[in-house]
Amino acid sequence: MKQSQIFIPTLKEIPSDAEAKSHQLMLRGGFIRQVSAGIYAYLPLAVRVLHNIEQIVREEMEQIDAIEMLAPAILPGELWQESGRYATYGDNLFKLKDRHERNFILGPTHEETLTYLIRDQLNSYKKMPKILYQIQAKYRDEDRPRYGLLRGREFIMKDGYSFSANQAQLDDAFNKMEQAYTNIFNRCALDYRVILGDSGDMGGNASKEFSAVAEIGEDTIVYSDSSDYAANLEMAQSIIQPNPQETAQPLQTVATPHTPTVESVAAFLKVTPKQVIKSRAYVVDEQPVLVLIRGDSEVNETKLKNVLNAQQDVQMATDEQVESMFHSVAGFMGPFDLPETVKIVADSSLKGLCNGVTGANQKDLHWQNVNLERDLHLSDQDFVDVRTVQPGELSPDHQGSLQFTRGIEIGHIFKLGTRYSETLKATFLDENGRQQPVIMGSYGIGISRLLSAIVEQHCDDAGIIWPWQLAPYQVHVVIINTKDEDQVQLASEVEASLQNAGFSVLVDDRSERPGVKFAEADLIGSPVRITVGKKASDKILEIKLRNQTDSVEVNENDLIDSMKILLKNY
Amino acid sequence: MKQSQIFIPTLKEIPSDAEAKSHQLMLRGGFIRQVSAGIYAYLPLAVRVLHNIEQIVREEMEQIDAIEMLAPAILPGELWQESGRYATYGDNLFKLKDRHERNFILGPTHEETLTYLIRDQLNSYKKMPKILYQIQAKYRDEDRPRYGLLRGREFIMKDGYSFSANQAQLDDAFNKMEQAYTNIFNRCALDYRVILGDSGDMGGNASKEFSAVAEIGEDTIVYSDSSDYAANLEMAQSIIQPNPQETAQPLQTVATPHTPTVESVAAFLKVTPKQVIKSRAYVVDEQPVLVLIRGDSEVNETKLKNVLNAQQDVQMATDEQVESMFHSVAGFMGPFDLPETVKIVADSSLKGLCNGVTGANQKDLHWQNVNLERDLHLSDQDFVDVRTVQPGELSPDHQGSLQFTRGIEIGHIFKLGTRYSETLKATFLDENGRQQPVIMGSYGIGISRLLSAIVEQHCDDAGIIWPWQLAPYQVHVVIINTKDEDQVQLASEVEASLQNAGFSVLVDDRSERPGVKFAEADLIGSPVRITVGKKASDKILEIKLRNQTDSVEVNENDLIDSMKILLKNY
Repeated sequence: MKQSQIFIPTLKEIPSDAEAKSHQLMLRGGFIRQVSAGIYAYLPLAVRVLHNIEQIVREEMEQIDAIEMLAPAILPGELWQESGRYATYGDNLFKLKDRHERNFILGPTHEETLTYLIRDQLNSYKKMPKILYQIQAKYRDEDRPRYGLLRGREFIMKDGYSFSANQAQLDDAFNKMEQAYTNIFNRCALDYRVILGDSGDMGGNASKEFSAVAEIGEDTIVYSDSSDYAANLEMAQSIIQPNPQETAQPLQTVATPHTPTVESVAAFLKVTPKQVIKSRAYVVDEQPVLVLIRGDSEVNETKLKNVLNAQQDVQMATDEQVESMFHSVAGFMGPFDLPETVKIVADSSLKGLCNGVTGANQKDLHWQNVNLERDLHLSDQDFVDVRTVQPGELSPDHQGSLQFTRGIEIGHIFKLGTRYSETLKATFLDENGRQQPVIMGSYGIGISRLLSAIVEQHCDDAGIIWPWQLAPYQVHVVIINTKDEDQVQLASEVEASLQNAGFSVLVDDRSERPGVKFAEADLIGSPVRITVGKKASDKILEIKLRNQTDSVEVNENDLIDSMKILLKNY
Repeated sequence: MKQSQIFIPTLKEIPSDAEAKSHQLMLRGGFIRQVSAGIYAYLPLAVRVLHNIEQIVREEMEQIDAIEMLAPAILPGELWQESGRYATYGDNLFKLKDRHERNFILGPTHEETLTYLIRDQLNSYKKMPKILYQIQAKYRDEDRPRYGLLRGREFIMKDGYSFSANQAQLDDAFNKMEQAYTNIFNRCALDYRVILGDSGDMGGNASKEFSAVAEIGEDTIVYSDSSDYAANLEMAQSIIQPNPQETAQPLQTVATPHTPTVESVAAFLKVTPKQVIKSRAYVVDEQPVLVLIRGDSEVNETKLKNVLNAQQDVQMATDEQVESMFHSVAGFMGPFDLPETVKIVADSSLKGLCNGVTGANQKDLHWQNVNLERDLHLSDQDFVDVRTVQPGELSPDHQGSLQFTRGIEIGHIFKLGTRYSETLKATFLDENGRQQPVIMGSYGIGISRLLSAIVEQHCDDAGIIWPWQLAPYQVHVVIINTKDEDQVQLASEVEASLQNAGFSVLVDDRSERPGVKFAEADLIGSPVRITVGKKASDKILEIKLRNQTDSVEVNENDLIDSMKILLKNY
């Protein structure tokens, strides 16, 4: 491809509103252009990368017998009313009416549509398992679209759905899909973690998330420095325990003037904050809940909600609620002498804690020598994990210590179960002739978002450094002087022999200055740059890898062999 | 691919609401499913055909250096307000608002978007010509979606746009695109005509339409039986002339009681209807226009509108308007003694007509021996073509006679000129440093509609007969008894050797009755069916082409060679 023919509108300046590296580089490199907030056009270079990614996805889907189809993007509102998500999905759902005032949405995901399409068709256990997938534009009316393709309002997804007659088939589909995703992200040269996900409003009961490591990422990933363990911060398990125990002393109150914080009471009583049992008042589904947790730790509200099977998000109690519902006072709360309506939840970090300190529900008064098992009659099972883990602590698999990083969600796999088949009435007859709801799984990859994640991980100050298998063009041939016939002729021969060898080639045939051409080649990020300059009359070329600073000169005849050797270092 | 794994939900009954053959067959064959009126899911077999078509399109676009990109489908309303089409496109435009109440549309076509993307970029004649294209879902809120994929509300288009610095570059892009489209439709095995199109609301000044011959088509195509001439009925040129002339007689009135029709006055005066000069009263942009045309012919209102450069569609005058604006009476209108405000338009079929008959603008009165040139002082140039051609008459290129057929619009190429670059202010500096609007072309193919057009032309009562290069699977291997290990084993060997030979293969491994399998194989329409039955133990197979009734038996070892010979007849 000649650079004069393709459309690569590079920018010289860093766009002021682009915060993410990948966003800046894809704008500067002429890969994408914004058409409206969070809505982008993929220009020719980006389309070539998308196609490379899609090709990898299709190959890996074929490996696990997943079958490609293509549902519409505009969907009747009734389908989403049937599932209940028309109301619950909220403002993120693009809604519209047709000329006859019928409700439609633009699909952010297709559980309803696929369930609709298979119902009455996958009506026997003999017709399952099946896995269907599609690659398609999806829509989410994000409140604050940002970071280019990372949080857009129109984006490309690979979404897949499995249909099973029993749990074993679902597990099998889920495991196959996990393997396929692993292969896909490896082939995309991504550094990622497989983490236990929160299934959010997909309605499932088990999920894993694939998260690409990147500072710009919106999620905090917790992972072990010595094992495969990884989880979202909201899900990472806490296993810290108190230190070796002292001898239990009698419970007693103690006056503690001006000590409304963990630090102040610990200092006053000359104990460590770990000895302080912090009390946090919550209102959960309108009921008062007191959460006890180690003084140096924080309550994880997602864990708390899950532990309590709460319908609504949990809310911290206001000072008024502390007084009216807990009969206590902020800064001096504790688990003793509370109204019977208050439920007490103790974090497992307190299990076995000896001679702790808690508030006494009166200003400037605490209890000393608290032993929860003894004083509140708690058994081991009463302690639950509602604590947010901290960097450096022991990994829950007891291998290594936990590290924190930021991540971009690039894939998510869910065991949906019968959430959609029950509401949308997709049933089948099992081996015994009984009608059962189809058991489903749902599997997504953010194809356009992958572009951003890959660029975040593969770039330097000068531009993008494409992984070989994803590059829009693998080789960028730069002609120094397009008026020199020797150079033009040699470039043409080089292009032909590279293409014969199976490489994709972009030839910079423009009459720009060499400095401009080199800078744009670095920006665009082809793995290999071949410069055709003054030595063209001697058939000498210069080869440079994008990820290295040195270049080598080779004769035209040695080009392909030299490239194969050099590429081992790419 | 095993048939037990793919998803092909065939239907036994003809869907009652499907009128078109292609719609019926694609529903029955499990290719498509309706999700809402005019909105379809492409099931796995259809996606494979779509991909085959898209591959052909991409190859032919690459041949003419057209570059692929991908614009968003959801577009800001402001862009369409800038071009003026937000208001003029009418109810066919899907409109919606985002959560911040900003206006968006779902793109039915992308002239505005592409103009927006290239403006400020293609800012010099040196950066042109360029051709960009995309393959993407498009949206039209049709009032009456019908015929399956033929008139849908979400459909897949290849839309391309050329950007040129001068007319010669536009002509070149247009001609290249016409050649590419010809190649594409030939490779899709379509019987089509290239016709002079009406550019409709695209705002262009020259266009050609590619129309696939099919009874279900919504357009009437006129074509010569002896040349390449073809046109839409609205555009087909009329060149009929009066027969050799008599001697002109003096103009005179004649009483003609009860003769308000051409037939009745011709009978009464003992002339042929061709001698009668029929007068038709129109109101064009609020002005009265009398159209004179040969008695056996009809006025073509599209031609009339074009001839008069009318802003609005032309309207037949009502009886009241005939009286008030023309001072005449229905059934007896004529060109003499009219108010001066009435414009007279004479069709070229009347040029040289000798001794014709016209109404005299009074009940039961006509003029005889009318010679328009003499009596109305008309010269040759005053005669214009406003007549609808009729089957059997001379083709305008004087080669052969005109035939009528119905057609499906499958492609359309437009010379847009500066319609969009002027309104959206996309300008460039020409060789002389002068700012000029970019000269554009627009080129569309209805990819999903092609599916329907191909099926309309390639089917029989039993089902679809796919062209070889488009078939979802080229070979359908049917195992008669899946419990017979010899058969299963042989089918597996056959599948492997066919795939090695480069064929796509579907293996019917289901435990259905042979009759069901054969019927579904015919319905799905793979070009070749290979039956593995009782003679499997002797490695004998049966090969049958979908478009023939006979089958042949071959040994497994001769399979590939036999297929190559047989396929010459496909």
